[in-house]
Amino acid sequence: MNSFGAVETGGTKIKCLIGTSPDDIYSQATFPTTNPEETLAKVIDFFRLHLDESNIDLKAIGIASFGPLDLNPASETYGFITHTPKPGWQMTNVAGYLSDALAIPAYIDTDVNGAVLGEYAWGAGKNIENLVYLTVGTGIGGGALINGLPLHGLIHPEMGHMRIQHDWINDPFAGSCPFHGDCLEGMASGTAIEKRWGRKGEDLPDNHPAWRLEVYYLAQAIVNVVLIISPQRVIIGGGVMGNTDLYEMIRTQVKELLAGYVHARQILVGIDEFISAPGLGSQSGVLGALALAINRHSKK
Amino acid sequence: MNSFGAVETGGTKIKCLIGTSPDDIYSQATFPTTNPEETLAKVIDFFRLHLDESNIDLKAIGIASFGPLDLNPASETYGFITHTPKPGWQMTNVAGYLSDALAIPAYIDTDVNGAVLGEYAWGAGKNIENLVYLTVGTGIGGGALINGLPLHGLIHPEMGHMRIQHDWINDPFAGSCPFHGDCLEGMASGTAIEKRWGRKGEDLPDNHPAWRLEVYYLAQAIVNVVLIISPQRVIIGGGVMGNTDLYEMIRTQVKELLAGYVHARQILVGIDEFISAPGLGSQSGVLGALALAINRHSKK
Repeated sequence: MNSFGAVETGGTKIKCLIGTSPDDIYSQATFPTTNPEETLAKVIDFFRLHLDESNIDLKAIGIASFGPLDLNPASETYGFITHTPKPGWQMTNVAGYLSDALAIPAYIDTDVNGAVLGEYAWGAGKNIENLVYLTVGTGIGGGALINGLPLHGLIHPEMGHMRIQHDWINDPFAGSCPFHGDCLEGMASGTAIEKRWGRKGEDLPDNHPAWRLEVYYLAQAIVNVVLIISPQRVIIGGGVMGNTDLYEMIRTQVKELLAGYVHARQILVGIDEFISAPGLGSQSGVLGALALAINRHSKK
Repeated sequence: MNSFGAVETGGTKIKCLIGTSPDDIYSQATFPTTNPEETLAKVIDFFRLHLDESNIDLKAIGIASFGPLDLNPASETYGFITHTPKPGWQMTNVAGYLSDALAIPAYIDTDVNGAVLGEYAWGAGKNIENLVYLTVGTGIGGGALINGLPLHGLIHPEMGHMRIQHDWINDPFAGSCPFHGDCLEGMASGTAIEKRWGRKGEDLPDNHPAWRLEVYYLAQAIVNVVLIISPQRVIIGGGVMGNTDLYEMIRTQVKELLAGYVHARQILVGIDEFISAPGLGSQSGVLGALALAINRHSKK
Protein backbone atom coordinates (compact mmCIF):
# COMPACT_ATOMS: atom_id res chain seq x y z
CA MET A 1 0.00 0.00 0.00
CA ASN A 2 1.25 3.49 -0.83
CA SER A 3 2.41 5.43 2.17
CA PHE A 4 4.12 8.75 2.68
CA GLY A 5 6.69 10.21 5.00
CA ALA A 6 6.49 13.54 6.81
CA VAL A 7 9.15 15.54 8.62
CA GLU A 8 8.66 18.78 10.52
CA THR A 9 11.97 20.37 11.42
CA GLY A 10 11.46 22.82 14.25
CA GLY A 11 13.91 24.91 16.18
CA THR A 12 13.96 22.57 19.19
CA LYS A 13 12.53 19.28 17.92
CA ILE A 14 12.00 17.36 14.75
CA LYS A 15 8.89 15.25 14.15
CA CYS A 16 8.67 12.32 11.74
CA LEU A 17 5.75 10.18 10.71
CA ILE A 18 4.65 7.62 8.15
CA GLY A 19 1.03 7.34 7.07
CA THR A 20 -1.60 8.58 4.68
CA SER A 21 -3.84 10.82 6.85
CA PRO A 22 -4.40 11.85 10.50
CA ASP A 23 -6.58 8.72 10.84
CA ASP A 24 -3.99 6.45 9.28
CA ILE A 25 -0.65 7.04 10.96
CA TYR A 26 1.55 4.00 10.87
CA SER A 27 4.44 5.23 12.96
CA GLN A 28 5.73 8.49 14.40
CA ALA A 29 8.66 9.80 16.41
CA THR A 30 10.10 13.03 17.78
CA PHE A 31 13.79 13.87 18.25
CA PRO A 32 15.58 16.93 19.61
CA THR A 33 16.99 19.28 16.94
CA THR A 34 20.75 19.36 17.46
CA ASN A 35 23.24 19.77 14.61
CA PRO A 36 22.15 18.84 11.07
CA GLU A 37 24.30 15.67 10.76
CA GLU A 38 23.04 14.10 13.99
CA THR A 39 19.45 15.25 13.55
CA LEU A 40 19.07 14.15 9.93
CA ALA A 41 20.75 10.82 10.71
CA LYS A 42 17.99 10.12 13.23
CA VAL A 43 15.35 11.00 10.66
CA ILE A 44 16.91 8.64 8.13
CA ASP A 45 17.14 5.86 10.72
CA PHE A 46 13.48 6.29 11.58
CA PHE A 47 12.40 5.86 7.96
CA ARG A 48 14.88 3.04 7.22
CA LEU A 49 13.54 1.10 10.18
CA HIS A 50 10.24 0.79 8.34
CA LEU A 51 11.35 0.67 4.71
CA ASP A 52 11.60 -3.09 4.46
CA GLU A 53 8.28 -3.76 6.17
CA SER A 54 5.94 -5.48 3.75
CA ASN A 55 2.96 -3.17 4.32
CA ILE A 56 4.98 0.03 3.73
CA ASP A 57 5.57 1.33 0.23
CA LEU A 58 7.01 4.78 0.87
CA LYS A 59 6.41 6.89 -2.23
CA ALA A 60 7.63 10.32 -1.16
CA ILE A 61 8.52 12.41 1.82
CA GLY A 62 7.29 15.91 2.67
CA ILE A 63 9.28 18.32 4.81
CA ALA A 64 7.93 21.38 6.64
CA SER A 65 10.97 23.25 7.85
CA PHE A 66 12.04 26.36 9.67
CA GLY A 67 13.59 28.79 7.21
CA PRO A 68 14.49 30.75 5.37
CA LEU A 69 14.39 28.15 2.59
CA ASP A 70 15.33 28.29 -1.06
CA LEU A 71 12.10 27.27 -2.81
CA ASN A 72 13.07 28.32 -6.32
CA PRO A 73 13.15 25.09 -8.40
CA ALA A 74 15.59 26.74 -10.84
CA SER A 75 18.13 27.49 -8.12
CA GLU A 76 21.26 25.47 -7.42
CA THR A 77 20.43 25.54 -3.72
CA TYR A 78 16.78 24.51 -4.12
CA GLY A 79 15.50 22.83 -0.97
CA PHE A 80 18.26 24.23 1.24
CA ILE A 81 17.78 25.95 4.58
CA THR A 82 19.67 29.14 3.72
CA HIS A 83 20.54 32.15 5.92
CA THR A 84 19.11 30.96 9.22
CA PRO A 85 20.51 32.36 12.44
CA LYS A 86 20.35 28.80 13.84
CA PRO A 87 23.98 27.69 14.47
CA GLY A 88 25.22 24.98 12.11
CA TRP A 89 22.14 24.92 9.90
CA GLN A 90 23.12 27.59 7.34
CA MET A 91 23.03 26.23 3.78
CA THR A 92 21.83 22.77 4.79
CA ASN A 93 20.47 20.70 1.90
CA VAL A 94 17.66 19.05 3.89
CA ALA A 95 15.47 17.93 1.00
CA GLY A 96 18.32 16.68 -1.17
CA TYR A 97 20.01 14.84 1.70
CA LEU A 98 16.88 12.97 2.78
CA SER A 99 15.88 12.21 -0.80
CA ASP A 100 19.32 10.75 -1.60
CA ALA A 101 19.57 8.75 1.63
CA LEU A 102 16.11 7.22 1.27
CA ALA A 103 16.10 7.06 -2.52
CA ILE A 104 12.64 8.60 -2.78
CA PRO A 105 11.47 12.09 -3.80
CA ALA A 106 11.49 14.69 -1.02
CA TYR A 107 9.41 17.90 -1.21
CA ILE A 108 9.96 20.83 1.08
CA ASP A 109 8.15 23.99 2.15
CA THR A 110 8.23 26.28 5.18
CA ASP A 111 6.86 25.05 8.51
CA VAL A 112 4.02 27.56 8.25
CA ASN A 113 3.17 26.71 4.65
CA GLY A 114 3.17 23.11 5.89
CA ALA A 115 0.77 24.04 8.66
CA VAL A 116 -1.57 25.79 6.25
CA LEU A 117 -1.50 22.74 3.93
CA GLY A 118 -2.30 20.44 6.86
CA GLU A 119 -5.19 22.61 8.03
CA TYR A 120 -6.47 22.82 4.44
CA ALA A 121 -6.36 19.04 4.02
CA TRP A 122 -7.77 17.90 7.36
CA GLY A 123 -8.18 20.80 9.79
CA ALA A 124 -9.91 24.12 10.35
CA GLY A 125 -9.34 25.31 6.77
CA LYS A 126 -10.89 22.42 4.89
CA ASN A 127 -11.60 23.38 1.27
CA ILE A 128 -10.76 27.04 1.95
CA GLU A 129 -8.47 27.90 -0.94
CA ASN A 130 -7.31 31.29 0.34
CA LEU A 131 -6.09 30.53 3.81
CA VAL A 132 -3.53 31.97 6.20
CA TYR A 133 -1.87 30.22 9.15
CA LEU A 134 -0.11 32.33 11.76
CA THR A 135 1.94 30.71 14.49
CA VAL A 136 2.68 32.69 17.64
CA GLY A 137 5.33 30.95 19.69
CA THR A 138 8.98 31.63 20.43
CA GLY A 139 8.86 33.46 17.11
CA ILE A 140 6.00 34.45 14.82
CA GLY A 141 5.54 33.13 11.30
CA GLY A 142 2.82 32.97 8.69
CA GLY A 143 2.06 30.78 5.72
CA ALA A 144 -0.60 31.19 3.06
CA LEU A 145 -2.49 29.29 0.40
CA ILE A 146 -3.68 31.28 -2.60
CA ASN A 147 -6.08 29.44 -4.88
CA GLY A 148 -5.15 26.27 -3.01
CA LEU A 149 -1.39 26.59 -3.57
CA PRO A 150 1.30 27.55 -1.03
CA LEU A 151 2.45 31.14 -1.50
CA HIS A 152 6.14 31.48 -2.38
CA GLY A 153 6.84 34.43 -4.68
CA LEU A 154 10.28 35.94 -4.29
CA ILE A 155 11.24 33.60 -1.42
CA HIS A 156 8.32 32.93 0.93
CA PRO A 157 6.36 35.10 3.36
CA GLU A 158 8.03 36.19 6.60
CA MET A 159 4.91 37.64 8.17
CA GLY A 160 6.37 37.68 11.67
CA HIS A 161 8.46 40.71 10.82
CA MET A 162 5.77 43.08 9.53
CA ARG A 163 5.59 46.54 11.08
CA ILE A 164 2.56 47.33 13.25
CA GLN A 165 1.70 50.27 15.49
CA HIS A 166 3.57 50.29 18.77
CA ASP A 167 1.40 51.30 21.74
CA TRP A 168 4.04 53.55 23.31
CA ILE A 169 1.64 54.84 25.96
CA ASN A 170 1.03 51.44 27.55
CA ASP A 171 4.14 49.70 26.30
CA PRO A 172 7.58 51.33 26.56
CA PHE A 173 9.25 47.98 25.66
CA ALA A 174 11.55 48.56 22.67
CA GLY A 175 11.00 45.11 21.16
CA SER A 176 12.96 41.86 21.13
CA CYS A 177 13.67 41.29 17.43
CA PRO A 178 17.43 41.40 16.81
CA PHE A 179 16.79 42.58 13.23
CA HIS A 180 13.89 45.01 13.60
CA GLY A 181 13.30 45.80 17.27
CA ASP A 182 9.57 46.41 17.51
CA CYS A 183 8.26 44.50 14.49
CA LEU A 184 5.38 42.07 15.16
CA GLU A 185 7.68 39.29 16.39
CA GLY A 186 9.61 41.79 18.50
CA MET A 187 6.37 42.86 20.18
CA ALA A 188 4.14 39.79 20.37
CA SER A 189 6.20 36.57 20.28
CA GLY A 190 6.65 34.43 23.37
CA THR A 191 10.20 35.78 23.49
CA ALA A 192 8.89 39.37 23.54
CA ILE A 193 6.40 38.58 26.31
CA GLU A 194 9.11 37.02 28.45
CA LYS A 195 11.59 39.87 27.88
CA ARG A 196 8.97 42.55 28.51
CA TRP A 197 7.51 41.13 31.72
CA GLY A 198 10.38 38.99 33.05
CA ARG A 199 8.12 35.95 33.06
CA LYS A 200 6.90 33.48 30.44
CA GLY A 201 3.38 34.01 29.11
CA GLU A 202 2.19 30.77 30.68
CA ASP A 203 3.13 32.16 34.12
CA LEU A 204 1.17 35.41 33.70
CA PRO A 205 -2.35 35.57 35.19
CA ASP A 206 -5.37 36.01 32.91
CA ASN A 207 -5.93 39.60 34.06
CA HIS A 208 -2.33 40.67 33.43
CA PRO A 209 -1.94 43.74 31.17
CA ALA A 210 0.31 41.61 28.92
CA TRP A 211 -2.73 40.09 27.27
CA ARG A 212 -4.38 43.33 26.22
CA LEU A 213 -1.15 44.35 24.47
CA GLU A 214 -0.79 40.89 22.93
CA VAL A 215 -4.29 41.13 21.51
CA TYR A 216 -3.65 44.63 20.16
CA TYR A 217 -0.53 43.55 18.29
CA LEU A 218 -1.93 40.27 16.96
CA ALA A 219 -5.20 41.94 15.90
CA GLN A 220 -3.20 44.49 13.89
CA ALA A 221 -1.23 41.66 12.29
CA ILE A 222 -4.44 39.95 11.20
CA VAL A 223 -5.87 43.24 9.95
CA ASN A 224 -2.76 43.73 7.80
CA VAL A 225 -2.96 40.18 6.47
CA VAL A 226 -6.66 40.65 5.66
CA LEU A 227 -6.01 43.95 3.87
CA ILE A 228 -2.97 42.70 1.93
CA ILE A 229 -3.85 39.07 1.10
CA SER A 230 -7.65 39.03 1.53
CA PRO A 231 -7.79 35.45 2.88
CA GLN A 232 -11.08 33.62 3.42
CA ARG A 233 -9.94 32.40 6.85
CA VAL A 234 -7.07 32.99 9.28
CA ILE A 235 -5.93 30.20 11.60
CA ILE A 236 -3.78 31.14 14.59
CA GLY A 237 -1.72 28.53 16.40
CA GLY A 238 1.48 28.31 18.41
CA GLY A 239 2.35 28.17 22.09
CA VAL A 240 1.25 31.68 23.04
CA MET A 241 -2.28 30.85 21.83
CA GLY A 242 -2.40 28.20 24.55
CA ASN A 243 -4.12 31.06 26.40
CA THR A 244 -7.32 30.36 24.48
CA ASP A 245 -9.08 33.47 25.83
CA LEU A 246 -7.00 35.37 23.29
CA TYR A 247 -9.09 34.14 20.34
CA GLU A 248 -12.26 35.93 21.38
CA MET A 249 -10.37 39.10 22.33
CA ILE A 250 -8.54 39.11 18.99
CA ARG A 251 -11.80 38.61 17.04
CA THR A 252 -13.37 41.59 18.80
CA GLN A 253 -10.39 43.83 18.21
CA VAL A 254 -9.98 42.84 14.55
CA LYS A 255 -13.57 43.94 13.93
CA GLU A 256 -12.96 47.19 15.82
CA LEU A 257 -9.79 47.96 13.89
CA LEU A 258 -11.32 47.15 10.49
CA ALA A 259 -14.22 49.45 11.45
CA GLY A 260 -16.59 47.89 8.90
CA TYR A 261 -14.23 48.64 6.03
CA VAL A 262 -14.03 45.07 4.72
CA HIS A 263 -17.70 44.47 4.08
CA ALA A 264 -17.78 40.67 4.07
CA ARG A 265 -20.27 38.43 5.82
CA GLN A 266 -17.35 36.26 7.00
CA ILE A 267 -16.00 39.17 9.04
CA LEU A 268 -19.15 41.09 9.94
CA VAL A 269 -21.12 38.09 11.24
CA GLY A 270 -18.79 35.08 10.83
CA ILE A 271 -15.68 36.24 12.67
CA ASP A 272 -15.82 33.22 15.05
CA GLU A 273 -15.01 30.99 12.10
CA PHE A 274 -12.97 33.53 10.15
CA ILE A 275 -10.40 33.61 12.95
CA SER A 276 -9.98 29.99 14.04
CA ALA A 277 -7.81 27.84 16.25
CA PRO A 278 -5.99 25.04 14.38
CA GLY A 279 -8.09 21.92 13.83
CA LEU A 280 -4.98 19.77 14.08
CA GLY A 281 -3.57 21.34 17.26
CA SER A 282 0.19 21.11 17.37
CA GLN A 283 0.20 18.54 14.54
CA SER A 284 -0.62 21.02 11.73
CA GLY A 285 3.01 21.21 10.61
CA VAL A 286 3.90 17.54 10.44
CA LEU A 287 0.53 16.62 8.94
CA GLY A 288 1.03 19.45 6.47
CA ALA A 289 4.35 17.86 5.50
CA LEU A 290 2.36 14.66 4.89
CA ALA A 291 -0.17 16.57 2.76
CA LEU A 292 2.72 18.12 0.81
CA ALA A 293 4.16 14.65 0.03
CA ILE A 294 0.76 13.33 -1.05
CA ASN A 295 -0.13 16.41 -3.15
CA ARG A 296 3.17 16.58 -4.95
CA HIS A 297 3.35 12.81 -5.51
CA SER A 298 -0.12 12.79 -7.10
CA LYS A 299 0.92 15.63 -9.46
CA LYS A 300 3.91 13.76 -10.83
CA MET B 1 -10.13 42.00 -36.89
CA ASN B 2 -10.67 41.16 -33.21
CA SER B 3 -10.52 44.16 -30.93
CA PHE B 4 -11.22 44.75 -27.28
CA GLY B 5 -12.70 47.47 -25.15
CA ALA B 6 -11.28 48.85 -21.92
CA VAL B 7 -12.85 51.05 -19.26
CA GLU B 8 -11.16 52.47 -16.19
CA THR B 9 -13.65 53.98 -13.78
CA GLY B 10 -11.87 56.35 -11.46
CA GLY B 11 -13.21 58.61 -8.75
CA THR B 12 -13.07 61.74 -10.90
CA LYS B 13 -12.80 60.50 -14.48
CA ILE B 14 -13.56 57.48 -16.59
CA LYS B 15 -11.29 56.37 -19.43
CA CYS B 16 -12.37 54.25 -22.38
CA LEU B 17 -10.40 52.77 -25.23
CA ILE B 18 -10.61 50.27 -28.06
CA GLY B 19 -7.55 48.39 -29.27
CA THR B 20 -5.39 45.35 -28.81
CA SER B 21 -2.22 46.70 -27.14
CA PRO B 22 -0.55 50.00 -26.18
CA ASP B 23 0.85 50.12 -29.73
CA ASP B 24 -2.51 49.44 -31.31
CA ILE B 25 -5.07 51.79 -29.84
CA TYR B 26 -7.87 52.51 -32.25
CA SER B 27 -9.77 55.10 -30.25
CA GLN B 28 -9.85 56.49 -26.75
CA ALA B 29 -11.80 58.99 -24.68
CA THR B 30 -12.04 60.35 -21.15
CA PHE B 31 -15.20 61.61 -19.40
CA PRO B 32 -15.79 63.05 -15.94
CA THR B 33 -17.24 60.58 -13.41
CA THR B 34 -20.61 61.98 -12.37
CA ASN B 35 -23.58 59.78 -11.44
CA PRO B 36 -23.66 56.18 -12.72
CA GLU B 37 -26.50 56.70 -15.24
CA GLU B 38 -24.89 59.64 -16.98
CA THR B 39 -21.35 58.26 -16.79
CA LEU B 40 -22.16 54.78 -18.06
CA ALA B 41 -24.34 56.25 -20.85
CA LYS B 42 -21.27 58.08 -22.12
CA VAL B 43 -19.22 54.90 -22.03
CA ILE B 44 -21.88 53.05 -23.99
CA ASP B 45 -22.13 55.88 -26.54
CA PHE B 46 -18.35 55.78 -27.01
CA PHE B 47 -18.34 52.07 -27.82
CA ARG B 48 -21.53 52.20 -29.94
CA LEU B 49 -19.98 54.94 -32.05
CA HIS B 50 -17.42 52.41 -33.25
CA LEU B 51 -19.41 49.18 -33.20
CA ASP B 52 -20.58 49.37 -36.80
CA GLU B 53 -17.19 50.27 -38.23
CA SER B 54 -16.02 47.56 -40.52
CA ASN B 55 -12.52 47.18 -39.05
CA ILE B 56 -13.82 46.79 -35.47
CA ASP B 57 -14.96 43.42 -34.17
CA LEU B 58 -15.34 44.06 -30.45
CA LYS B 59 -15.05 40.72 -28.66
CA ALA B 60 -15.11 41.71 -25.00
CA ILE B 61 -14.70 44.61 -22.65
CA GLY B 62 -12.52 44.82 -19.56
CA ILE B 63 -13.27 47.14 -16.66
CA ALA B 64 -10.83 48.30 -13.98
CA SER B 65 -12.92 50.02 -11.36
CA PHE B 66 -12.74 51.75 -8.03
CA GLY B 67 -14.25 49.50 -5.37
CA PRO B 68 -15.08 47.74 -3.31
CA LEU B 69 -16.31 45.27 -5.92
CA ASP B 70 -18.08 41.96 -5.67
CA LEU B 71 -15.71 39.60 -7.54
CA ASN B 72 -17.26 36.32 -6.40
CA PRO B 73 -18.63 34.66 -9.56
CA ALA B 74 -21.14 32.71 -7.44
CA SER B 75 -22.66 35.87 -5.98
CA GLU B 76 -25.91 37.49 -7.11
CA THR B 77 -24.20 40.84 -7.14
CA TYR B 78 -21.09 39.68 -9.07
CA GLY B 79 -19.50 42.59 -10.92
CA PHE B 80 -21.21 45.26 -8.79
CA ILE B 81 -19.50 48.20 -7.14
CA THR B 82 -20.73 47.54 -3.59
CA HIS B 83 -20.28 49.56 -0.40
CA THR B 84 -18.40 52.53 -1.81
CA PRO B 85 -18.58 55.86 0.00
CA LYS B 86 -18.91 57.52 -3.44
CA PRO B 87 -22.41 59.07 -3.59
CA GLY B 88 -24.82 57.35 -5.98
CA TRP B 89 -22.49 54.48 -6.87
CA GLN B 90 -23.42 51.99 -4.13
CA MET B 91 -24.56 48.65 -5.58
CA THR B 92 -24.00 49.67 -9.20
CA ASN B 93 -23.94 46.75 -11.64
CA VAL B 94 -21.21 48.16 -13.87
CA ALA B 95 -20.13 44.95 -15.60
CA GLY B 96 -23.66 43.64 -16.16
CA TYR B 97 -24.96 46.98 -17.42
CA LEU B 98 -22.17 47.46 -19.98
CA SER B 99 -22.33 43.83 -21.08
CA ASP B 100 -26.09 44.02 -21.66
CA ALA B 101 -25.98 47.38 -23.40
CA LEU B 102 -23.19 46.35 -25.79
CA ALA B 103 -24.18 42.67 -26.07
CA ILE B 104 -20.62 41.49 -25.45
CA PRO B 105 -18.97 39.90 -22.40
CA ALA B 106 -17.66 42.35 -19.80
CA TYR B 107 -15.00 41.39 -17.24
CA ILE B 108 -14.26 43.46 -14.16
CA ASP B 109 -11.54 43.76 -11.54
CA THR B 110 -10.31 46.49 -9.21
CA ASP B 111 -8.48 49.51 -10.62
CA VAL B 112 -5.28 48.35 -8.92
CA ASN B 113 -5.60 44.75 -10.09
CA GLY B 114 -6.13 46.29 -13.51
CA ALA B 115 -2.94 48.31 -13.14
CA VAL B 116 -0.96 45.25 -12.12
CA LEU B 117 -2.33 43.31 -15.12
CA GLY B 118 -1.38 46.17 -17.45
CA GLU B 119 2.14 46.42 -16.05
CA TYR B 120 2.48 42.62 -16.28
CA ALA B 121 1.38 42.59 -19.93
CA TRP B 122 3.27 45.62 -21.27
CA GLY B 123 4.96 47.59 -18.50
CA ALA B 124 7.51 47.39 -15.71
CA GLY B 125 6.36 43.97 -14.52
CA LYS B 126 6.65 42.04 -17.78
CA ASN B 127 6.63 38.28 -17.14
CA ILE B 128 6.86 38.80 -13.37
CA GLU B 129 4.20 36.47 -12.07
CA ASN B 130 4.24 37.65 -8.46
CA LEU B 131 3.79 41.37 -8.76
CA VAL B 132 2.33 44.16 -6.64
CA TYR B 133 1.11 47.57 -7.81
CA LEU B 134 0.63 50.31 -5.23
CA THR B 135 -0.99 53.59 -6.17
CA VAL B 136 -0.40 56.61 -3.97
CA GLY B 137 -2.77 59.41 -4.90
CA THR B 138 -5.86 60.93 -3.29
CA GLY B 139 -6.15 57.49 -1.67
CA ILE B 140 -3.82 54.51 -1.52
CA GLY B 141 -4.59 51.12 -3.05
CA GLY B 142 -2.74 47.97 -3.96
CA GLY B 143 -3.31 45.12 -6.38
CA ALA B 144 -1.39 41.89 -6.74
CA LEU B 145 -0.74 39.06 -9.15
CA ILE B 146 0.09 35.68 -7.63
CA ASN B 147 1.32 33.08 -10.10
CA GLY B 148 0.18 35.41 -12.87
CA LEU B 149 -3.42 35.73 -11.63
CA PRO B 150 -5.06 38.73 -9.93
CA LEU B 151 -5.42 38.21 -6.18
CA HIS B 152 -9.02 38.20 -4.94
CA GLY B 153 -9.56 35.86 -1.99
CA LEU B 154 -12.35 36.91 0.37
CA ILE B 155 -13.06 40.14 -1.57
CA HIS B 156 -9.89 41.78 -2.87
CA PRO B 157 -6.92 43.45 -1.18
CA GLU B 158 -7.40 46.88 0.39
CA MET B 159 -3.72 47.51 1.06
CA GLY B 160 -4.19 51.24 1.60
CA HIS B 161 -5.64 50.62 5.03
CA MET B 162 -2.88 48.50 6.59
CA ARG B 163 -1.49 49.62 9.95
CA ILE B 164 2.08 50.92 10.02
CA GLN B 165 4.16 52.60 12.70
CA HIS B 166 3.25 56.21 13.31
CA ASP B 167 6.27 58.47 13.85
CA TRP B 168 4.72 60.41 16.74
CA ILE B 169 7.95 62.27 17.47
CA ASN B 170 8.12 63.99 14.08
CA ASP B 171 4.47 63.69 13.15
CA PRO B 172 1.70 64.60 15.60
CA PHE B 173 -0.88 64.46 12.76
CA ALA B 174 -3.66 62.06 13.81
CA GLY B 175 -4.35 60.79 10.29
CA SER B 176 -6.96 61.55 7.64
CA CYS B 177 -8.71 58.19 7.14
CA PRO B 178 -12.37 58.49 8.18
CA PHE B 179 -12.40 54.77 9.02
CA HIS B 180 -9.02 54.19 10.66
CA GLY B 181 -7.34 57.53 11.41
CA ASP B 182 -3.64 56.80 11.05
CA CYS B 183 -3.63 53.77 8.76
CA LEU B 184 -1.33 53.95 5.70
CA GLU B 185 -3.83 55.96 3.64
CA GLY B 186 -4.51 58.21 6.63
CA MET B 187 -0.78 58.97 6.89
CA ALA B 188 0.61 58.91 3.36
CA SER B 189 -2.11 59.63 0.77
CA GLY B 190 -2.26 62.94 -1.07
CA THR B 191 -5.23 63.78 1.14
CA ALA B 192 -3.15 63.15 4.27
CA ILE B 193 -0.29 65.31 2.98
CA GLU B 194 -2.66 68.19 2.24
CA LYS B 195 -4.45 67.93 5.60
CA ARG B 196 -1.20 67.66 7.54
CA TRP B 197 0.64 70.56 5.89
CA GLY B 198 -2.21 72.72 4.61
CA ARG B 199 -0.80 72.50 1.11
CA LYS B 200 -0.90 69.93 -1.67
CA GLY B 201 2.18 67.75 -2.11
CA GLU B 202 2.94 69.30 -5.49
CA ASP B 203 3.26 72.69 -3.78
CA LEU B 204 5.76 71.52 -1.16
CA PRO B 205 9.48 72.09 -1.86
CA ASP B 206 11.85 69.14 -2.26
CA ASN B 207 13.50 69.78 1.10
CA HIS B 208 10.22 69.94 3.03
CA PRO B 209 10.01 67.52 6.01
CA ALA B 210 6.83 66.10 4.45
CA TRP B 211 8.89 63.92 2.14
CA ARG B 212 10.92 62.19 4.83
CA LEU B 213 7.71 61.18 6.57
CA GLU B 214 6.15 60.12 3.27
CA VAL B 215 9.13 57.88 2.56
CA TYR B 216 9.02 56.39 6.06
CA TYR B 217 5.36 55.44 5.75
CA LEU B 218 5.56 54.13 2.16
CA ALA B 219 8.74 52.16 2.91
CA GLN B 220 6.97 50.46 5.82
CA ALA B 221 4.03 49.65 3.54
CA ILE B 222 6.36 48.01 1.02
CA VAL B 223 8.17 46.14 3.80
CA ASN B 224 4.82 44.74 4.99
CA VAL B 225 3.83 43.76 1.47
CA VAL B 226 7.20 42.05 0.95
CA LEU B 227 6.92 40.15 4.24
CA ILE B 228 3.28 39.12 3.75
CA ILE B 229 3.03 38.45 -0.03
CA SER B 230 6.69 37.98 -1.03
CA PRO B 231 6.33 39.61 -4.46
CA GLN B 232 9.09 39.53 -7.06
CA ARG B 233 8.60 43.22 -7.82
CA VAL B 234 6.66 46.20 -6.45
CA ILE B 235 5.53 48.98 -8.78
CA ILE B 236 4.48 52.29 -7.23
CA GLY B 237 2.40 54.79 -9.15
CA GLY B 238 -0.13 57.51 -8.47
CA GLY B 239 -0.05 61.28 -8.26
CA VAL B 240 2.07 61.60 -5.12
CA MET B 241 4.86 59.67 -6.87
CA GLY B 242 5.03 62.53 -9.36
CA ASN B 243 7.80 63.63 -6.97
CA THR B 244 10.15 61.08 -8.53
CA ASP B 245 12.88 61.67 -5.93
CA LEU B 246 10.74 59.53 -3.66
CA TYR B 247 11.66 56.30 -5.46
CA GLU B 248 15.32 56.39 -4.50
CA MET B 249 14.55 57.45 -0.94
CA ILE B 250 11.98 54.65 -0.58
CA ARG B 251 14.42 52.05 -1.94
CA THR B 252 17.05 53.07 0.58
CA GLN B 253 14.65 53.00 3.50
CA VAL B 254 13.09 49.65 2.52
CA LYS B 255 16.56 48.10 2.65
CA GLU B 256 17.24 49.75 6.01
CA LEU B 257 13.95 48.56 7.49
CA LEU B 258 14.35 44.99 6.22
CA ALA B 259 17.86 45.02 7.72
CA GLY B 260 19.05 42.14 5.53
CA TYR B 261 16.30 39.84 6.75
CA VAL B 262 14.93 38.98 3.31
CA HIS B 263 18.06 37.53 1.78
CA ALA B 264 17.23 37.89 -1.93
CA ARG B 265 19.48 39.21 -4.66
CA GLN B 266 16.53 41.25 -5.97
CA ILE B 267 16.46 43.24 -2.74
CA LEU B 268 20.10 43.19 -1.67
CA VAL B 269 21.55 44.29 -5.01
CA GLY B 270 18.57 44.72 -7.34
CA ILE B 271 16.39 47.13 -5.38
CA ASP B 272 16.39 49.68 -8.23
CA GLU B 273 14.36 47.24 -10.31
CA PHE B 274 12.57 45.59 -7.38
CA ILE B 275 10.87 48.90 -6.56
CA SER B 276 9.90 50.39 -9.92
CA ALA B 277 7.91 53.23 -11.38
CA PRO B 278 5.07 52.14 -13.69
CA GLY B 279 6.15 51.40 -17.24
CA LEU B 280 2.79 52.59 -18.54
CA GLY B 281 2.65 55.84 -16.56
CA SER B 282 -0.91 56.87 -15.81
CA GLN B 283 -2.24 54.38 -18.40
CA SER B 284 -1.61 51.23 -16.30
CA GLY B 285 -5.24 50.99 -15.25
CA VAL B 286 -6.99 51.39 -18.58
CA LEU B 287 -4.40 49.22 -20.36
CA GLY B 288 -4.86 46.67 -17.58
CA ALA B 289 -8.57 46.68 -18.33
CA LEU B 290 -7.60 45.92 -21.93
CA ALA B 291 -5.33 43.09 -20.80
CA LEU B 292 -8.18 41.73 -18.64
CA ALA B 293 -10.52 41.66 -21.63
CA ILE B 294 -7.92 39.92 -23.81
CA ASN B 295 -6.88 37.40 -21.13
CA ARG B 296 -10.39 36.41 -20.20
CA HIS B 297 -11.58 36.26 -23.80
CA SER B 298 -8.73 33.93 -24.74
CA LYS B 299 -9.65 31.61 -21.85
CA LYS B 300 -13.25 31.18 -22.98
